[in-house]
Amino acid sequence: MLGNAIVGQSGGPTAVINASLAGVFKAAKDHKIQKVYGMRNGIEGLLQEKYIDLSDYVKTSLEIELLKRTPASFLGTCRYKLPAPSSAPQTYEKIFGIFKKLDIKYFFYIGGNDSMDTIMKLSEYADAVGSDIRFIGVPKTIDNDLAVTDHTPGYGSAAKYIATAMKEIICDAKTYSTDSVTIVEIMGRNAGWLTAAASLSCCEDCSGPDLIYLPERVFDRDSFVDKILELKKTNKVVIVAVSEGVTTKDGKYVCEANKKNVITDSFGHKLLGGTAMYLSDYLTDCTGIKSRGIVFSTLQRCASHMVSRRDITEAFMAGADAVVAAARGETGKMIIFRRISNEPYSMVTDSCDIHLIANKEKTIPQEWITADGTYITDEFNEYARPLIIGELSPFMVDGLPRHLFIDD
Amino acid sequence: MLGNAIVGQSGGPTAVINASLAGVFKAAKDHKIQKVYGMRNGIEGLLQEKYIDLSDYVKTSLEIELLKRTPASFLGTCRYKLPAPSSAPQTYEKIFGIFKKLDIKYFFYIGGNDSMDTIMKLSEYADAVGSDIRFIGVPKTIDNDLAVTDHTPGYGSAAKYIATAMKEIICDAKTYSTDSVTIVEIMGRNAGWLTAAASLSCCEDCSGPDLIYLPERVFDRDSFVDKILELKKTNKVVIVAVSEGVTTKDGKYVCEANKKNVITDSFGHKLLGGTAMYLSDYLTDCTGIKSRGIVFSTLQRCASHMVSRRDITEAFMAGADAVVAAARGETGKMIIFRRISNEPYSMVTDSCDIHLIANKEKTIPQEWITADGTYITDEFNEYARPLIIGELSPFMVDGLPRHLFIDD
Repeated sequence: MLGNAIVGQSGGPTAVINASLAGVFKAAKDHKIQKVYGMRNGIEGLLQEKYIDLSDYVKTSLEIELLKRTPASFLGTCRYKLPAPSSAPQTYEKIFGIFKKLDIKYFFYIGGNDSMDTIMKLSEYADAVGSDIRFIGVPKTIDNDLAVTDHTPGYGSAAKYIATAMKEIICDAKTYSTDSVTIVEIMGRNAGWLTAAASLSCCEDCSGPDLIYLPERVFDRDSFVDKILELKKTNKVVIVAVSEGVTTKDGKYVCEANKKNVITDSFGHKLLGGTAMYLSDYLTDCTGIKSRGIVFSTLQRCASHMVSRRDITEAFMAGADAVVAAARGETGKMIIFRRISNEPYSMVTDSCDIHLIANKEKTIPQEWITADGTYITDEFNEYARPLIIGELSPFMVDGLPRHLFIDD
Repeated sequence: MLGNAIVGQSGGPTAVINASLAGVFKAAKDHKIQKVYGMRNGIEGLLQEKYIDLSDYVKTSLEIELLKRTPASFLGTCRYKLPAPSSAPQTYEKIFGIFKKLDIKYFFYIGGNDSMDTIMKLSEYADAVGSDIRFIGVPKTIDNDLAVTDHTPGYGSAAKYIATAMKEIICDAKTYSTDSVTIVEIMGRNAGWLTAAASLSCCEDCSGPDLIYLPERVFDRDSFVDKILELKKTNKVVIVAVSEGVTTKDGKYVCEANKKNVITDSFGHKLLGGTAMYLSDYLTDCTGIKSRGIVFSTLQRCASHMVSRRDITEAFMAGADAVVAAARGETGKMIIFRRISNEPYSMVTDSCDIHLIANKEKTIPQEWITADGTYITDEFNEYARPLIIGELSPFMVDGLPRHLFIDD
């Protein structure tokens, strides 16, 4: 095919975002696209003309496999919101000037709802100026909060990590004969998909968390304390999974309560964290019960040593199918997943107008949350469990997982 | 052999403590010891006559393998310090009464330096009252701070988890184009072995942490800030590994600075935590540099999904060799490891008088720490790297590691 491709990664890293990059690269090569450039740090880096030729870094099939097993964004990432074309035409002229210089015909962007804003704006601009460059988004987010698609690459692996870690933490907590409450803080600003995944730890050999608090329901500190006290009547050990994004009825994040300053990112999102510690202290202050907070932190999004094989396969497929969609002439679209059935699990990809996805957020259906808002229902379990199936072993070298990297 | 055995687990869990339990059980069966009882929650549970017959739970070779892959203490644990025999003779009479009732001839206790105090006191009492019961300790601690032995079962797996997680966190931190400091808090009250293991992440594909602060050196907050500022001149991203146990020159733990109450356990040890958050806030307050704290928390001691095969093999061996030592008539001993060579790695077990080990602590040699106290030397690397070699895959069921458990 004529012309070259460029691919970028944007937003928070995942354990499988590089599998999508590998999918784009492999399919582009299979489609005889001549060069596949990689933006360094997404569109922000591209504006500074920072890019690489991916063939310089991915030369062999082994390196493609290594790339799939490398956590976080191989190319680097950004949190950069493109201005509207009307307010900053020079930004778009610059980007399209770079496209011309590099003979770009295909643009792929691997990211979440904010990143799809970039695909939307660039494809609209291309349309307005009569450019034939095709812009396709590849879904990516551990948060699983993209609209239209059944789920997002990155979610299954994060869910598997969370469920695995929960199982181990529950083993650890129950090993003592003393009474305790363990509060585990899990990522997810407005959508509880990741926190709900803690429930997957409940299986034949594990009782799972006792309480799950999602951002989809208003959080009340006193009801929380009452619920713990009720459980403590029968359980020595109580395990709570709480989203970092739970808010009280005044609309404030719980974690804002003991912070000096709350920082926001370029999309206006507040940076969260501290919910578990705050609730642990609050509980102990109110009741004297021994409590500890655990924060899964960045490992839930970058633990490439514990990925879902299904997730990594689908992430690769989403990247490859973006190339296929572009090759057949589509633009201004994102690859989506449609689930055919749960048992046996069957899924197909499709493409969807980016306007239905960009800047939108999909939360957990209210009917999947129990009436008192402290657990999720079986529907969630049926939805999420197929996504954590299967393993992909890291390439272990001298006792540690090996990753691909750019030496600069 | 005549008589039965009883085995207990004590102190903090590890990812391989159950491999030692499996080793005791398997060797006891091989030695035709009739029954192998397991104390629930160590000596504390035994005093309440809480025990099980291990054969009821471990019936097959598959279950032995499952036990090896189960994190935390299968039997439950305790932090219980036996009183001196002179001050509480009734406690010892009770324990030895239970031994008589169960026809116990062999007592095995899997634990760290505090737990070995139990072996010491029980074997001394047995000697004083003319009992022929044999008491053997099996080393266990992620902290690697037991005297005499080259290293302890549990350390290699914790070190492997820490180095793996560090690699992934470093990938994640470097994916952004923004300046940042990441401070990772690692366990280890007075000994820096675990924190030093962060340095193992430095290999062909990873630069490792930039600074490592161990409890073996006095910590100075202002030197810490100066060091970061110096590094920031050349590095966008700075990664720091810090022990939860670092203390300032007044002898106080750094993490005590922003705590309302510091709780102590039954051995008088202060419960630590909060060092990374405190330092992160302090750094940002002093310099305005964006900083985040990450706490590895309990996962570093119970991540059975990422164990060192060498560690788990040695943990099993330590348990089995405790039975062998007891069978040949030894008592008041702990199994120790002697390293023959690093390259190729070669290790043998031996047994050692418990008085040389109980209540003692082994820290990192001062000469293994760099002059300015911010990194460790190659000697540590040569010592620790062989301990993280090899993997043991979890038994994955429906996407999650399966564990053995006691249903009660």
